[in-house]
Amino acid sequence: MFDDLHFNEAGLVPVIAQDVATKTVLMLAWANLAALENTMATGLATYYSRSRGEQWVKGATSGHTQQVREVRIDCDRDAVLYLVAQRGVACHTGGYSCFAASEQGLYSPLPHDPEPARPSQSLLGASETAISRDISSVVPENDRVVD
Amino acid sequence: MFDDLHFNEAGLVPVIAQDVATKTVLMLAWANLAALENTMATGLATYYSRSRGEQWVKGATSGHTQQVREVRIDCDRDAVLYLVAQRGVACHTGGYSCFAASEQGLYSPLPHDPEPARPSQSLLGASETAISRDISSVVPENDRVVD
Repeated sequence: MFDDLHFNEAGLVPVIAQDVATKTVLMLAWANLAALENTMATGLATYYSRSRGEQWVKGATSGHTQQVREVRIDCDRDAVLYLVAQRGVACHTGGYSCFAASEQGLYSPLPHDPEPARPSQSLLGASETAISRDISSVVPENDRVVD
Repeated sequence: MFDDLHFNEAGLVPVIAQDVATKTVLMLAWANLAALENTMATGLATYYSRSRGEQWVKGATSGHTQQVREVRIDCDRDAVLYLVAQRGVACHTGGYSCFAASEQGLYSPLPHDPEPARPSQSLLGASETAISRDISSVVPENDRVVD
């Protein structure tokens, strides 16, 4: 069922693990076809270690497994989302998420638009101006995620 | 501030975009150092198109921009999470998320453990047995996400 995924030159796709209950993004790792198939067959989140060249079941040694409730493939079929029930913590540092905020890992961009989702007319005008200025030095995109 | 990220051989890191309000995972794309710096400087989610070899500001042409509230780096500093306010939709197919469930993109693994987060003793025993069986054909991992 995953034969048509667009694996990279190493035969891998990036996999996002998200907590199905809290919606916290837990980690990003990689999987090959066999790892995806093992996930489907066992219900346990399975990945592929690029450094060790091995398939690995998350939490096999620590007990911090991820029970996969859903596997979602993105529109371009080159990225995977595991919706999981995390037992224990996801991160080897002891954190629940590998993206837990820390001084070394959290940055706040300069805000441009305080109400982007539902801008008023005046805010919309200001925002459009800001956007036009911001993109002057970069090439517009066609809104395709695939690259 | 991103100089120490572990970019791949093409100078890129994978970037997850997550809706800061709904926590929906919207898309996975790629960024180089310049794209990350542009995101920080402008507050607009900026990526790098591998196919076009260009930096792109999400929504520059469609208006479906992503106002980035936070940029988080993972424990191994080789993956990025943008927490964004999405204007319009994230996906070029018209979907709010590129991971929207569809028949072609949604799979349900075989369940193994109905209560993984807070197992009772009996459930824990059953689960451990299942895990032991499941990993018999794969190599145990050391719980590091980095690979």
